[in-house]
Amino acid sequence: MIYLDNAATAKPDSQCIKAAEKYLLNEFYNPSALYAEGYNLHLELKRSRQNILSLIADEGNFSIIFTSCGTEADNQAIFCGAKRGNVVTTLGEHSAVHSAVTELKQRGIEVRFANLNKDGSVDVNHLLSLIDEKTSLVSVIHVNNETGVVNDIFDISEKVKSKNKYALFHSDGVQAFGKLPFKLSKYIDLYSVSAHKIGGVKGCGALIKKKNLVIKPFIYGGGQEQGLRSGTENVFGIKCFELAALKRFDKLDQSYKFVKELNFAMRSFLDKNLFRIISSENASPYILTVSACGLRGETVLHEAEDNGLIIGTGSACSSNAKKRYSRIILACGIDEVEADGILRLSFSPDNTLEEVDKAAEILNRIVKNRKDIMA
Amino acid sequence: MIYLDNAATAKPDSQCIKAAEKYLLNEFYNPSALYAEGYNLHLELKRSRQNILSLIADEGNFSIIFTSCGTEADNQAIFCGAKRGNVVTTLGEHSAVHSAVTELKQRGIEVRFANLNKDGSVDVNHLLSLIDEKTSLVSVIHVNNETGVVNDIFDISEKVKSKNKYALFHSDGVQAFGKLPFKLSKYIDLYSVSAHKIGGVKGCGALIKKKNLVIKPFIYGGGQEQGLRSGTENVFGIKCFELAALKRFDKLDQSYKFVKELNFAMRSFLDKNLFRIISSENASPYILTVSACGLRGETVLHEAEDNGLIIGTGSACSSNAKKRYSRIILACGIDEVEADGILRLSFSPDNTLEEVDKAAEILNRIVKNRKDIMA
Repeated sequence: MIYLDNAATAKPDSQCIKAAEKYLLNEFYNPSALYAEGYNLHLELKRSRQNILSLIADEGNFSIIFTSCGTEADNQAIFCGAKRGNVVTTLGEHSAVHSAVTELKQRGIEVRFANLNKDGSVDVNHLLSLIDEKTSLVSVIHVNNETGVVNDIFDISEKVKSKNKYALFHSDGVQAFGKLPFKLSKYIDLYSVSAHKIGGVKGCGALIKKKNLVIKPFIYGGGQEQGLRSGTENVFGIKCFELAALKRFDKLDQSYKFVKELNFAMRSFLDKNLFRIISSENASPYILTVSACGLRGETVLHEAEDNGLIIGTGSACSSNAKKRYSRIILACGIDEVEADGILRLSFSPDNTLEEVDKAAEILNRIVKNRKDIMA
Repeated sequence: MIYLDNAATAKPDSQCIKAAEKYLLNEFYNPSALYAEGYNLHLELKRSRQNILSLIADEGNFSIIFTSCGTEADNQAIFCGAKRGNVVTTLGEHSAVHSAVTELKQRGIEVRFANLNKDGSVDVNHLLSLIDEKTSLVSVIHVNNETGVVNDIFDISEKVKSKNKYALFHSDGVQAFGKLPFKLSKYIDLYSVSAHKIGGVKGCGALIKKKNLVIKPFIYGGGQEQGLRSGTENVFGIKCFELAALKRFDKLDQSYKFVKELNFAMRSFLDKNLFRIISSENASPYILTVSACGLRGETVLHEAEDNGLIIGTGSACSSNAKKRYSRIILACGIDEVEADGILRLSFSPDNTLEEVDKAAEILNRIVKNRKDIMA
């Protein structure tokens, strides 16, 4: 089976799981407990914080709140970062942000959506025009999970701050962390990441925040995570996350280059008469979205599966919404015929060129046969 | 090492973890994905829902929302169950409820606290006197995590409904589920449970709710868990929870009887001149709270640890609050000298009578020596 749906979830790294296994079975104590066995786990988690933070931020200026997933981290950023007035975001956000700001509207906060360019990136001038002195929070996704386009959140956040220095800047970095090389700048206040997209296990994510930024807790209780996220810490999940992140970052540039090769090989192998490439060439190489225009993506997905190839049709999360067309793809200005045929191919450094070759061949054959029948 | 802090977290069941391991490494797909590998996991989770529900509820009338922990389940019940007007709860709630209702007050909802009886159970008449036509939610812990006292939530919820049939009734069942035999009645709307207290892994809990009850989501996003809790499902955590719950319930009565033996053995082994037993005899046998009056619990805990015995001093969660006395213990009318010496001994069916014998001997010796020195 060739797995090209790594943006939905990646295969957990068995070495990291093996190394963290002791926190499942032996060092199972409660990290809030007062005895040494518990306190040692508290210290272990402290090391995990430092190790993960150091990969993308200056530890002196940022801190980390472990959450149960990227979605929870996004929700905490939105619900605990937004204040009365307005919130500015984009039409290209993952549903974890999109649905959260939709709920904010219900709670009486105005939400303004910036348009997307054709590649799915935010129209920065439009975004800036929406920001005023009443804007409390701006949220812009780092790497779009449907097109792979990279928003330059470093430039955007600086411009946001020059329009309103009190507005918090948040970015959903779930598809960027462990894939693109970057360091958080002082203009970024909140940044969400997830473990299971980079070889960690499901059930673990984090919200990275500027150290001196005061936000409210999202989950209230025993006061874990500096009082900002209560609940017994998922030590095994956090250690898997740490180990997977360290491993990914250790070969970040090398993997990026290799995945770009895979991506460009796929672009060249796919038959131009059958597929339209949606993702721009400077998008994250980890995501390649194409359209088998004239066919339904879901049909191709199922036939590919029967042929040993697993791919996606966009955000796995949005499959729960049961909407035929992706709101993000439509916001890119893509028409319904093309939107209907959307396929998302997403890579991992563990994929091979042979797999890409074979996958392209399967996709070309399926779509050609179907189009031949329809013709 | 003798482990008697099972109420803080229990040792995960290695058989259950082994049986669920395939969901970590092999069946790692996203349950929201459209291909069979994902959909099969969706069906697996459906089976987990049915299996867990069937243990304590009539499946036709209840549904289950998987969460990341008991604290999140409590938070969803409180924040999504409460409406304008007032919320009635008790002075004996776990911090997951206590801190959440404290936050509700900040949001303009009146919160009323019912007093406790000496054993930590709620004063039911006082509770009922606080309920009026504006009460939207009543929350009463099932088994108190500090004294082990069992509130008769079946009787209480029926009385609550006869005072105000529109008020929702929630109970935190984290220390009851998998330990006491019971079935949810039609008067209970929301019930919180946790996996890691019964041999599952950290990072998984659930909110059980009446099927036709409409509450708001707590975490917004891709629409997982019937739209009520978004975020990629923690399949491994949920499967471990299911397997651990099935195993616990398979021997529920037998374990209850055995743990009661352990509890009563401990009661009889502890020197009555050194310890005051706080937990009433009809409390959950899984929790035995005593006071080494005149000493600090934390001091005894550390010396016990040096002697190979792990115990608690109350809620592990409250250790983050850095308060000297437990608010629950004080609410039971216990004075500060006794409250200072509180030790919580909590059992698992895997503990043995020999361990209890040895633990009592260690505790008797430590406290006697310290008191002799002080005398």
